[in-house]
Amino acid sequence: MTLQRYLITIEYDGSGLVGWQRQDNGPSVQEYLEHAAAKLCNQPTAIQGSGRTDAGVHAHAQAAHLDVPASLSARSVMLGLNSWLETDQVSVLSAQPVHADFNARFDAVKRRYWYRILDRATPSALDRNRVWHTRTPLDADAMAQAASYLVGRHDFTSFRASLCQANSPVRTLDRLDVMRAGDEIHLFAEARSFLHHQIRNFAGSLVQVGNGKWRPEKIKQILEAKDRSAAGPTAPPQGLYLMHIDYQNLDNC
Amino acid sequence: MTLQRYLITIEYDGSGLVGWQRQDNGPSVQEYLEHAAAKLCNQPTAIQGSGRTDAGVHAHAQAAHLDVPASLSARSVMLGLNSWLETDQVSVLSAQPVHADFNARFDAVKRRYWYRILDRATPSALDRNRVWHTRTPLDADAMAQAASYLVGRHDFTSFRASLCQANSPVRTLDRLDVMRAGDEIHLFAEARSFLHHQIRNFAGSLVQVGNGKWRPEKIKQILEAKDRSAAGPTAPPQGLYLMHIDYQNLDNC
Repeated sequence: MTLQRYLITIEYDGSGLVGWQRQDNGPSVQEYLEHAAAKLCNQPTAIQGSGRTDAGVHAHAQAAHLDVPASLSARSVMLGLNSWLETDQVSVLSAQPVHADFNARFDAVKRRYWYRILDRATPSALDRNRVWHTRTPLDADAMAQAASYLVGRHDFTSFRASLCQANSPVRTLDRLDVMRAGDEIHLFAEARSFLHHQIRNFAGSLVQVGNGKWRPEKIKQILEAKDRSAAGPTAPPQGLYLMHIDYQNLDNC
Repeated sequence: MTLQRYLITIEYDGSGLVGWQRQDNGPSVQEYLEHAAAKLCNQPTAIQGSGRTDAGVHAHAQAAHLDVPASLSARSVMLGLNSWLETDQVSVLSAQPVHADFNARFDAVKRRYWYRILDRATPSALDRNRVWHTRTPLDADAMAQAASYLVGRHDFTSFRASLCQANSPVRTLDRLDVMRAGDEIHLFAEARSFLHHQIRNFAGSLVQVGNGKWRPEKIKQILEAKDRSAAGPTAPPQGLYLMHIDYQNLDNC
């Protein structure tokens, strides 16, 4: 049977899931998708994501690739996967044919994330699993100044999970914008790739600046310390959203 | 004990609740709030809302009044109610002292609602209980034209639930705006008061215009027919949000 490789984009609500990656201890996005793909293709079908996301982290547009029988149209792949999905916490938004050597993980040239912090006295009922709620009012300008020290090529050991499996702690952070939006603070982060917990660790330390415990310059010192224990705590997962994966020269075929 | 009347605003996620009003068949927002108020005030405490909302309908800012011991500060009322709430689907956003004869239902001069329709091929994972998903693409301009026939003072029998308990089917609709926002259509409705299911019935009929089954002018004919069976179906509750209740000359006291 001739197979066709597809790039798919996926929205998910990470609440109650163990994350993107298939694991033994609970339902994952990958497991739901591979189950649906096996039903659609009538054979075991692996799905390779652009990268992992932690338990509780959401995605507006995760990217992944899979091989399906070439007889299926792009629309059939998209609608077929959705109709076989045994959860409404995951939705396939698009499916696009790509070359057989396309790889969703290794061909990604840019990853974009969003982190939402709600800084008001009362929690949100509608967004209770969608934001990090901190009761203390935060100074967005101070946080933006602190964030500016992180942009660029650095050794991010201070903001890397101790379990991070990457070979090198050096990454190039292209963008880390902080801005107020009503009673929320929004962080936008962009890089070719991120270390494990990197954005949640940024958020955890930037909140220490926003609430006045640390001056913005302290973030520069923490970065230079190359010591995880110098930085703030890891922010909770439910404020984090994978927003977009960029691929260069993505030919339709 | 001296009592002080408070106006409170409340956010809630209506998913899985029987609606605002206390009922025997499941948890309601009113029941959660009255339970919290009884704990805070150490005595049974009634909470009167600005009006009911249906099961599954959300609120960004429902309004209600209650009487609490005058010794409590406004901040204590807000934080105290939240700390006693036995659900995270309801959150009290503010508490403001008002005169003893203030009534959240009868003193309301304007009610504002929002209705969200997602018109794309695939459902939303993150907003699955937050929008009405219709697979057919909708024509927002045609829907806006149709909506314009509904604005003003009319007999709204055609858009009123058969179980509606209001004495008169005549209401003045101040605003019914329809606009596209990305892959959603948003309806904004404003009036002194609404009939039961009125906005959901508007949405159900406007979608028949948006998907091309009806011409915009048909909405005018349906209105003039004064016959519920002439109109479209009732749109589902999860797209509807109570956004704001206006009170005139609201003196702090």
